[in-house]
Amino acid sequence: MLSREKNELLTRTGPGTPMGTLLRRYWLPAALSLELPEPDGAPVRVRLLGEQLVAFRDSSGRIGLLREFCAHRGASLFFGRNEECGLRCIYHGWKYDASGNCVDMMNEPADLDFQSKIRLSAYPTMELGGLVWTYLGPPEQQPPLPRFAWALVPESHRHVYKTWQECNWLQALEGGIDTSHANILHRRLHPTDARHGIVPSATFVRAGAPRLEVYPHEYGYLYAGVRSLDDEQVYVRTYHYVMPFTQIRPGPLDMVKPHNAGHIWIPMDDENCMVYHWTYSMGAEPLSEEDRLEPGSGREPSEHLPDFRKVRNKDNNYLIDRQAQKTELFSGIVGINNQDNAVQESMGPIVDRTQEHLGPADKAIIIARQMLLDAVDTARAGGDPPGVHGDYEQLHAIVGAYPRDGSWQAAAGGTHQPLAAQV
Amino acid sequence: MLSREKNELLTRTGPGTPMGTLLRRYWLPAALSLELPEPDGAPVRVRLLGEQLVAFRDSSGRIGLLREFCAHRGASLFFGRNEECGLRCIYHGWKYDASGNCVDMMNEPADLDFQSKIRLSAYPTMELGGLVWTYLGPPEQQPPLPRFAWALVPESHRHVYKTWQECNWLQALEGGIDTSHANILHRRLHPTDARHGIVPSATFVRAGAPRLEVYPHEYGYLYAGVRSLDDEQVYVRTYHYVMPFTQIRPGPLDMVKPHNAGHIWIPMDDENCMVYHWTYSMGAEPLSEEDRLEPGSGREPSEHLPDFRKVRNKDNNYLIDRQAQKTELFSGIVGINNQDNAVQESMGPIVDRTQEHLGPADKAIIIARQMLLDAVDTARAGGDPPGVHGDYEQLHAIVGAYPRDGSWQAAAGGTHQPLAAQV
Amino acid sequence: MLSREKNELLTRTGPGTPMGTLLRRYWLPAALSLELPEPDGAPVRVRLLGEQLVAFRDSSGRIGLLREFCAHRGASLFFGRNEECGLRCIYHGWKYDASGNCVDMMNEPADLDFQSKIRLSAYPTMELGGLVWTYLGPPEQQPPLPRFAWALVPESHRHVYKTWQECNWLQALEGGIDTSHANILHRRLHPTDARHGIVPSATFVRAGAPRLEVYPHEYGYLYAGVRSLDDEQVYVRTYHYVMPFTQIRPGPLDMVKPHNAGHIWIPMDDENCMVYHWTYSMGAEPLSEEDRLEPGSGREPSEHLPDFRKVRNKDNNYLIDRQAQKTELFSGIVGINNQDNAVQESMGPIVDRTQEHLGPADKAIIIARQMLLDAVDTARAGGDPPGVHGDYEQLHAIVGAYPRDGSWQAAAGGTHQPLAAQV
Repeated sequence: MLSREKNELLTRTGPGTPMGTLLRRYWLPAALSLELPEPDGAPVRVRLLGEQLVAFRDSSGRIGLLREFCAHRGASLFFGRNEECGLRCIYHGWKYDASGNCVDMMNEPADLDFQSKIRLSAYPTMELGGLVWTYLGPPEQQPPLPRFAWALVPESHRHVYKTWQECNWLQALEGGIDTSHANILHRRLHPTDARHGIVPSATFVRAGAPRLEVYPHEYGYLYAGVRSLDDEQVYVRTYHYVMPFTQIRPGPLDMVKPHNAGHIWIPMDDENCMVYHWTYSMGAEPLSEEDRLEPGSGREPSEHLPDFRKVRNKDNNYLIDRQAQKTELFSGIVGINNQDNAVQESMGPIVDRTQEHLGPADKAIIIARQMLLDAVDTARAGGDPPGVHGDYEQLHAIVGAYPRDGSWQAAAGGTHQPLAAQV
Repeated sequence: MLSREKNELLTRTGPGTPMGTLLRRYWLPAALSLELPEPDGAPVRVRLLGEQLVAFRDSSGRIGLLREFCAHRGASLFFGRNEECGLRCIYHGWKYDASGNCVDMMNEPADLDFQSKIRLSAYPTMELGGLVWTYLGPPEQQPPLPRFAWALVPESHRHVYKTWQECNWLQALEGGIDTSHANILHRRLHPTDARHGIVPSATFVRAGAPRLEVYPHEYGYLYAGVRSLDDEQVYVRTYHYVMPFTQIRPGPLDMVKPHNAGHIWIPMDDENCMVYHWTYSMGAEPLSEEDRLEPGSGREPSEHLPDFRKVRNKDNNYLIDRQAQKTELFSGIVGINNQDNAVQESMGPIVDRTQEHLGPADKAIIIARQMLLDAVDTARAGGDPPGVHGDYEQLHAIVGAYPRDGSWQAAAGGTHQPLAAQV
Repeated sequence: MLSREKNELLTRTGPGTPMGTLLRRYWLPAALSLELPEPDGAPVRVRLLGEQLVAFRDSSGRIGLLREFCAHRGASLFFGRNEECGLRCIYHGWKYDASGNCVDMMNEPADLDFQSKIRLSAYPTMELGGLVWTYLGPPEQQPPLPRFAWALVPESHRHVYKTWQECNWLQALEGGIDTSHANILHRRLHPTDARHGIVPSATFVRAGAPRLEVYPHEYGYLYAGVRSLDDEQVYVRTYHYVMPFTQIRPGPLDMVKPHNAGHIWIPMDDENCMVYHWTYSMGAEPLSEEDRLEPGSGREPSEHLPDFRKVRNKDNNYLIDRQAQKTELFSGIVGINNQDNAVQESMGPIVDRTQEHLGPADKAIIIARQMLLDAVDTARAGGDPPGVHGDYEQLHAIVGAYPRDGSWQAAAGGTHQPLAAQV
């Protein structure tokens, strides 16, 4: 449970808000590279932390990210002409380069040199790992681009995509770092279950419930779910929570080939977020075309609308099938991503955390909130929040059976003392 | 005319409001029984007095009415699994029985016994007369379920349905207890009328206008419209207004067989209400299939959308036909219920009663408002508002010709002194 | 740039606002005459300066403009019966004449004479030039109907229509009186341009940029764009800005036959305005059918929805064609009116003028704002704002080549000292 004040503090990200100030200290994904496939192509609207922006790839391939509205009289540059290394407003022909400098005005005499006085808000951009990244914070505090292994492998080994989720960023993130729902919400029902359509005794699930361990690091934490298999072995599944909005986890293919996946949850505004997700091959073998389609994930191309919203969404109750819910799918909703979105969005645009009741299984969420609150304080005091200078290339998640001798900790990349959460 | 303050007081029904507090002292229809046709079937969302709830029929047939959002982290229980005497959240498998007790948690170890500490807001339910009733008030003040004749006859003799009306409950109720519009708004035009397309002289209607009498009772009032037929006879039509939101009136079939009908107006929130309507045979003969279709009522199945909204609605101007308005229908709108909804919804979500001009024909409305205001005061002072303990089984409405000897009063169930209304 | 306070002052027009008070001193177009084609036809809803009204043409042809909601209990008179010189509410049959007098009540006895006490807000109307005009101000200050040449010619010589624009009236007006966008936004690209798909050097446009002159008059101002052709001649294009919301400009046909056009921008509410546009033949020859279709204008019948909204609108990004934008149309949007609406509406419902950067080319806008602010002060002080008593029959706009001897000033109708604008 959170107080109303803390819930507001964690969920509001517009300019000037404490959480907005914290998030602006990090590089943020603004778009997929594939949304801007060619020089001088169509610009795209970008909503980021409550700001309305427009992105374009200029003639040289450089990506500009500008305030959406022309400095002259406020017409949208989404309609702009992307030409000769700049985005030109169709209203009076004011043209901006990718740095926001006004480089031409068609409606004023050239000798006036009015244009040299005009600058449009622009944010720096970098492309890496199939994403366009940007930094919305104070220039003097701009850190280097974060290094993630998935972003550094060849394109052949990586798949990235994104989903528009219609709720606050924090409840989407909390859904991602919460592992305890995985074998409940995403569970398939089988004809061999004792009673068709009725979930087998919860005892079955509980018996299998793992011991949850959280190991704090400078960047966030390592999370492990550890199950006893026998006297010799434990079954371990780990992920990393990288402050403030990233998760690195085992991918669906991890059991058959070395492979990791993850999410980045970015506020569009306080009632919408964009969830970037990626998967990559950690071995020599590239991803296959089928890997990229992510079958069963609910992220297949047929599940998305052109604006990255979902075909199954809150307006159609995610096309829940009550008959399937009895006999095939615990949730009745097709697609893992749709299942996650359904429960997270069903809480409302910003869930009222004064009404919640957290238990031990919510440890990861409790600790992440506390880390975010601490980081807000650090940023307020002018310090560097956790992970802004981090190199994450070595971070990886593991899943599998390990001997009870400490070797999973070594494989997971080392641990420290586990952290207790105050429920 | 009402002051702004009184208009607010009468129309706001959320938790903590004076009118909301009054209405929570009565049993309220929450759904049709047919919306929950079978044990372990799909749950339904219920909006009631501004509260978001979910109803389900459990394995034993008992109906639960819970706060819509799981006590754990707030996912909607509308998506829940209705199984083994409880509704289970699909997110982490928390399961609630119909009383709101948390009876299972799939994500926490059983030995923790966390679940015994969890309760979800739940309201008592009863089924009677084809409706699911609930009580949202203080448990220690819970009255018995009201007894209405229509609810006590065999199912074969009764028809119930409901319509989602897109305006405040009070202007819908006022439309129902106002009889003076009936032969105006609902009038059909005939080729024998003096001039096609022009309503015959209003004098015709006025000449037939009845004398309106209101007889107060403990439960509300008996309303009578009395027309002189000749020196011997009067033509009488009565209804009962039963506090705070019920009307018992002659049904459309009353002239040919003994039969009554009525409405119950229930706030969903302050800008929407659900209107339950029922009709029943008071004699030995059951209702026919045709009776149940309510031909001409505007409540035929083809006039409703699956969520009980109307096919003809404010977004399409109720499909008003201006040619028909000239020659066939006074309103130009097909269906009595649609005609009522059109005028009532056209006033806006909550009509501004500081702008109205009431006349003698609005007597019933004026008195009902005063009774509601008085009842708000009674409830505020901790007393029992009118009718909470009432037995209405004997209440019935009459229509027809009666000798001028007091026999209509006897047939109507007895009267007292009529009540004057301050316009 | 404007302060937030001045932006609010200029854009808010509801009852009681300073700008609303100013605008209520003038006659306003309320509808096209063709919307009320016949006596006793269907009424139409009219939204004007934030007020909800209903217009109807009575049996005698007179047009009534009433508050939309019946004085009795507030039902919408849009559903009313238009019959026998009055609009009758379908709820209880209260009937109003075009002056707002209640002339009949079907639900009350005639001898009560309640109706004589009831009056509904009504505004005076006049028909002229294919428009229905109304006056919403204090009756004692009602001026005569303005006389415009276009409104006084025979119907055969005039075309009028209107477009619902989804933004504040002022940014629509500012788009109209701003001439500098015309050969930018509305420009066609040609295959002979140096590089396909890239606009030719802006220098081309700039070289042709006219000298802008603004000559103040009692009614507003005469605006002239003057280009040097050679030592002998200048090319001149003028328009008149007539306070507070009218423009008279050369029409698209002016170069081939004597012909003027213009706009009137009327607030519906603060986020929508209705733009009336007209064109008329100043010579003997009437308009042809093709003239009336306004080919290429974006105002062709196929570009409008029945409620005068646009087929190409903000919800579909005006169907912008990015390929056409490269090689055919500077804007990528088909239709001059659609181009204007796209940029103006893209600024948002009410553009934030604290963020703008005006230059010399925005002179006309700067002066118009100042005139409006001055007029607000005049009206506040009880005086007559500019132009309320104006006779505009002689006002016309010119376009063409003139000798450098002052003859264009004579042709334009006389000028005074030009006005400097403070940017």
